[in-house]
Amino acid sequence: GKSLMANSKYEYVKAFEREQHELAGTWLVVRLDGRGFHRFTTQHDFVHPNDIRGLNLMNACARACMEEFKDICLAYGESDEYSFVLSPDTKFFDRRTSKILSVVVSFFTSNYVHLWPQHIVDDQNQPVRLQYPPQFDARVVCYPSLQHLRDYLSWRQADCHINNLYNTTFWALVHSGKTEAEAERVLRGTFSKDKNEILFSQFGINYNNLPAIFRRGSIFIHHSVAEKLVKVGVTSKTDPTPVERVVVRKRHQIDLLHTDLIGDAFWGEHVDVFPV
Amino acid sequence: GKSLMANSKYEYVKAFEREQHELAGTWLVVRLDGRGFHRFTTQHDFVHPNDIRGLNLMNACARACMEEFKDICLAYGESDEYSFVLSPDTKFFDRRTSKILSVVVSFFTSNYVHLWPQHIVDDQNQPVRLQYPPQFDARVVCYPSLQHLRDYLSWRQADCHINNLYNTTFWALVHSGKTEAEAERVLRGTFSKDKNEILFSQFGINYNNLPAIFRRGSIFIHHSVAEKLVKVGVTSKTDPTPVERVVVRKRHQIDLLHTDLIGDAFWGEHVDVFPV
Amino acid sequence: GKSLMANSKYEYVKAFEREQHELAGTWLVVRLDGRGFHRFTTQHDFVHPNDIRGLNLMNACARACMEEFKDICLAYGESDEYSFVLSPDTKFFDRRTSKILSVVVSFFTSNYVHLWPQHIVDDQNQPVRLQYPPQFDARVVCYPSLQHLRDYLSWRQADCHINNLYNTTFWALVHSGKTEAEAERVLRGTFSKDKNEILFSQFGINYNNLPAIFRRGSIFIHHSVAEKLVKVGVTSKTDPTPVERVVVRKRHQIDLLHTDLIGDAFWGEHVDVFPV
Amino acid sequence: GKSLMANSKYEYVKAFEREQHELAGTWLVVRLDGRGFHRFTTQHDFVHPNDIRGLNLMNACARACMEEFKDICLAYGESDEYSFVLSPDTKFFDRRTSKILSVVVSFFTSNYVHLWPQHIVDDQNQPVRLQYPPQFDARVVCYPSLQHLRDYLSWRQADCHINNLYNTTFWALVHSGKTEAEAERVLRGTFSKDKNEILFSQFGINYNNLPAIFRRGSIFIHHSVAEKLVKVGVTSKTDPTPVERVVVRKRHQIDLLHTDLIGDAFWGEHVDVFPV
Ligand SMILES: Nc1nc2c(ncn2[C@H]2C[C@H](O)[C@@H](COP(=O)(O)OP(=O)(O)OP(=O)(O)O)O2)c(=O)[nH]1
Ligand SMILES: Nc1nc2c(ncn2[C@H]2C[C@H](O)[C@@H](COP(=O)(O)OP(=O)(O)OP(=O)(O)O)O2)c(=O)[nH]1
Ligand SMILES: Nc1nc2c(ncn2[C@H]2C[C@H](O)[C@@H](COP(=O)(O)OP(=O)(O)OP(=O)(O)O)O2)c(=O)[nH]1
Ligand SMILES: Nc1nc2c(ncn2[C@H]2C[C@H](O)[C@@H](COP(=O)(O)OP(=O)(O)OP(=O)(O)O)O2)c(=O)[nH]1
Ligand SMILES: O=P(O)(O)OP(=O)(O)OP(=O)(O)O
Ligand SMILES: O=P(O)(O)OP(=O)(O)OP(=O)(O)O
Ligand SMILES: O=P(O)(O)OP(=O)(O)OP(=O)(O)O
Ligand SMILES: O=P(O)(O)OP(=O)(O)OP(=O)(O)O
Ligand SMILES: [Mg+2]
Ligand SMILES: [Mg+2]
Ligand SMILES: [Mg+2]
Ligand SMILES: [Mg+2]
Ligand SMILES: [Mg+2]
Ligand SMILES: [Mg+2]
Ligand SMILES: [Mg+2]
Ligand SMILES: [Mg+2]
Ligand SMILES: [Mg+2]
Ligand SMILES: [Mg+2]
Ligand SMILES: [Mg+2]
Ligand SMILES: [Mg+2]
Repeated sequence: GKSLMANSKYEYVKAFEREQHELAGTWLVVRLDGRGFHRFTTQHDFVHPNDIRGLNLMNACARACMEEFKDICLAYGESDEYSFVLSPDTKFFDRRTSKILSVVVSFFTSNYVHLWPQHIVDDQNQPVRLQYPPQFDARVVCYPSLQHLRDYLSWRQADCHINNLYNTTFWALVHSGKTEAEAERVLRGTFSKDKNEILFSQFGINYNNLPAIFRRGSIFIHHSVAEKLVKVGVTSKTDPTPVERVVVRKRHQIDLLHTDLIGDAFWGEHVDVFPV
Repeated sequence: GKSLMANSKYEYVKAFEREQHELAGTWLVVRLDGRGFHRFTTQHDFVHPNDIRGLNLMNACARACMEEFKDICLAYGESDEYSFVLSPDTKFFDRRTSKILSVVVSFFTSNYVHLWPQHIVDDQNQPVRLQYPPQFDARVVCYPSLQHLRDYLSWRQADCHINNLYNTTFWALVHSGKTEAEAERVLRGTFSKDKNEILFSQFGINYNNLPAIFRRGSIFIHHSVAEKLVKVGVTSKTDPTPVERVVVRKRHQIDLLHTDLIGDAFWGEHVDVFPV
Repeated sequence: GKSLMANSKYEYVKAFEREQHELAGTWLVVRLDGRGFHRFTTQHDFVHPNDIRGLNLMNACARACMEEFKDICLAYGESDEYSFVLSPDTKFFDRRTSKILSVVVSFFTSNYVHLWPQHIVDDQNQPVRLQYPPQFDARVVCYPSLQHLRDYLSWRQADCHINNLYNTTFWALVHSGKTEAEAERVLRGTFSKDKNEILFSQFGINYNNLPAIFRRGSIFIHHSVAEKLVKVGVTSKTDPTPVERVVVRKRHQIDLLHTDLIGDAFWGEHVDVFPV
Repeated sequence: GKSLMANSKYEYVKAFEREQHELAGTWLVVRLDGRGFHRFTTQHDFVHPNDIRGLNLMNACARACMEEFKDICLAYGESDEYSFVLSPDTKFFDRRTSKILSVVVSFFTSNYVHLWPQHIVDDQNQPVRLQYPPQFDARVVCYPSLQHLRDYLSWRQADCHINNLYNTTFWALVHSGKTEAEAERVLRGTFSKDKNEILFSQFGINYNNLPAIFRRGSIFIHHSVAEKLVKVGVTSKTDPTPVERVVVRKRHQIDLLHTDLIGDAFWGEHVDVFPV
């Protein structure tokens, strides 16, 4: 009728949408990062430099994304950011940029708020009130080869290491009584070696003994485990004696790791997912 | 030290990010839409065809976006979707597509989950449990002229009207005892006129008397109101007698409307924001 | 048979082509510019600062483009560059960026080499040998409104003026015996006023009396002229007496102008092509 | 002065140019194709189905492009088209799409017109007059891996084979007296095998003996040859006796091949340029 005609008159505006597709045959990375999380973590009294509750919450959101979006083959997270990797042959949303970008960041955020009360709890295990809704930015990046992808993940893991070594030393100095300005001055121009030295000599901290989740970040990866089940039952119509049978079943699970991504070991173990 | 060198070795991957900017001088529309909301609304027992709680929740999220992202000059929502309009001279994130897209959809989603318990309540005003976190897709579209933008908004409002007339009639038939398949058959091939007729003759419903929020959707727009305040005080150093003064102050507010966007009236009233 | 099957095996690579379309509803400008024309004009002994043969050749190529690509509504040229304007509703190649870009620059170049012998002639009117084939780069730019387009053309025409005033003064100094380094030093830091002054006092040149093609560049625009033709013939089956009839016919032509594009006059005269 | 200020007022329009870069780390292919060459070859009486003069001209243009644009590592041509390959680490124009696209198609076209009189000659070796300037379209495509690139080139070479087999049989039929419509009817639904059979039984043509340039197209590739030179001269300040020395010098050349690109042999021979 009239209204349908009216709408068909306006429908031409739909053609102004440009459909952008990510180049076929490339690895896709969706990286998201908390917006203004300096303020957000401060307002919610996150522990310095690493709040394990916050990291666990980030990881729970990433796991939810991997369960929801089966095309994500690996996820890597550190601080307020997460990178989701899709394989070169993914057909997720026909590789439409906006769709991939928006649903991943939307679902991650949705989980962040939804799971907040389970993770961000106080000493009495009571949920900390969320003072304002957080937001994440996101981008999609293409990497043409596995080497590029490995370099990307090495970049993020090296970033995690560098920041964590700095922050650990910085906050050790601050907690020992220095002002933030003093701590900053002490660290200016220092190398890794120097920070390790400060940690060890002044605070008795062996950096390499700190939790791997702080030093290396978090990796999620799919894993198929062969499970043996013992089934008991009759196997023949004529013989009623129950017999035991071992049944092998493949069960899918998502593993959380805090291992090194830079060397070759990890990639050697996962050639099935990341063929050279 | 070593790690910094290690990272600078990998940093080249950053250059694979392409920075896409939306064309300057055009209206930008960010439209987001609930993913799989057919299932989501069903699972949470939303009222058919319009659940006022759900619409209020969407509107609360849109309002939060307008407060957070000052560059949004108008928002229009209906069903599970919302369109946010940014003016041709917006410099929001330097018009970077990914940034605009991701933070808007992320913050909207964040609010949806955060505000859910306030809005989606049962008969006893108790929050309905959110069964799983929702997700929204989003896109950015450029419109070169105000006429294009008006046609875009007319397209969405006409869509609202067409769907709402259909759904209202459909659910009236279903609530009157028809199966969904029967209701669908009744409506197949009908015009607006016919649906209005069914509503009126069979259910005594005058379509035009239904709430405007259902028929026309929701519009948010900025509004500056001049407030008169009476201040009492001394005005001179020599005369201690307090006097009353009327002070005019501009106060900003965000108005929620359910009016027609297709005709010229709305645009005539808002030429300041939408100059021809 | 086998080969077709073989090819269908490879055809998937076609999908890696991304089809980019220029935003609908915007003015499109294709600007091309001679690559390394400093060297090219030097090698072919072009007259300094303006070689009328070279400008005429550029103009002949632009005219050929306007005749070949009917969607070009205006062209503006100066120095080694040309800008071609397509209207907001052009459907040329469905607004595909690569197609528009490539055929315009290809056809322009093709004409440049083809028409070279007619235009670049020596004192005896003999063609100068083309020492090596020239090349042009090109780009497509969108402008959302007529005001943007006008500003674009004003930018190019102002560029023409500024360069021409500088070059005219520079070469006058050089031709009067200064070295190029000396001439440059004289002009460093001068304003328009100063250059006009040097031209007038030292060389008796009134800049405004120089040919408009040098000062303002070249504009091509479509023009419909109503032509009156007197036709003689019989008009009736019964009366064999030949009569004269005046027939008005619209004839299309492409006009070459060297007028001002910055002020309002030009646009007032061509509101039909460039409606406000 | 005033004009500079005037121009800076307009310069903002420059920002509307979007700089698009081709994804780093991928093979780039620039494919160009004669526009409307059905008509162009007909008008200039090209021999059917393959005019060796036309192919030689295309090849001369491709060679010129390879000499001009050193980053092109391979070129493949057939019919009215040419594909130019740039390696994944090319920094040609910083990988700017418009620049690469425009200068390649422009320079190719420029050479086509420039070299026309040398190649397109009649029986008396006199240049055939170019009736109108030709034009080429062009596009840039990214391929992430060498396998993709090989499949791309296989696609073009298979296309060459399929078209050439068809055209050879078609024109044999036409030259033997059939109308074009009859020839088409004969070939409808036939397989490669059938066409080979028609050629052999009716025209005594063994398809595989036809010139490789027709069957496989043309490949240009860089080649470094070690040249031995015998130099005669004195080698010591004290001994004036001239001695002979063998000097090895690397000389660069561009080879023209008409070999198979689909199998592994070609790629095995050129692993230096195309590493796996
Ligand atoms: N206290 C504490 N802070 C954290 C933790 N994880 C992340 N943050 C804070 C530290 C940084 O200020 C911030 C992450 O750095 P970014 O570079 O992402 O900065 P921010 O999010 O403020 O700004 P952005 O909007 O991303 O540009 O989050 C944590 O576990 N504990
Ligand atoms: N019962 C009820 N359903 C609603 C209401 N508002 C929206 N919905 C449902 C009706 C539609 O099935 C759905 C919106 O239609 P869409 O075309 O967006 O479909 P859906 O979100 O399922 O799929 P999508 O992922 O967007 O393609 O949401 C409401 O107020 N009450
Ligand atoms: N002698 C002479 N030279 C001219 C004439 N028209 C243009 N040219 C020269 C002067 C400039 O050196 C050059 C145009 O400047 P461009 O900025 O386009 O530089 P060029 O083409 O060398 O480099 P490009 O590849 O465009 O970056 O062409 C002319 O009529 N006579
Ligand atoms: N007689 C003759 N014709 C040739 C030769 N090489 C190419 N052609 C003609 C045959 C085809 O009609 C045409 C190439 O096919 P295309 O698909 O590129 O068609 P065309 O260029 O007409 O249209 P287009 O603008 O590319 O869509 O060029 C040749 O050596 N001899
Ligand atoms: O956000 P940062 O600090 O990691 O740095 P960036 O990603 O280069 O900056 P942006 O978020 O603006 O893309
Ligand atoms: O989502 P719809 O049904 O409004 O239709 P669309 O926007 O054309 O489809 P998509 O969400 O796939 O862009
Ligand atoms: O070529 P120019 O000097 O006019 O300057 P540009 O257009 O900004 O540079 P480029 O040709 O590299 O786009
Ligand atoms: O030009 P064709 O026939 O090879 O086919 P295409 O490349 O798919 O078409 P277009 O030239 O329109 O991109
Ligand atoms: Mg950032
Ligand atoms: Mg952050
Ligand atoms: Mg961060
Ligand atoms: Mg949709
Ligand atoms: Mg939806
Ligand atoms: Mg919807
Ligand atoms: Mg330039
Ligand atoms: Mg130039
Ligand atoms: Mg120039
Ligand atoms: Mg084509
Ligand atoms: Mg062609
Ligand atoms: Mg072709």
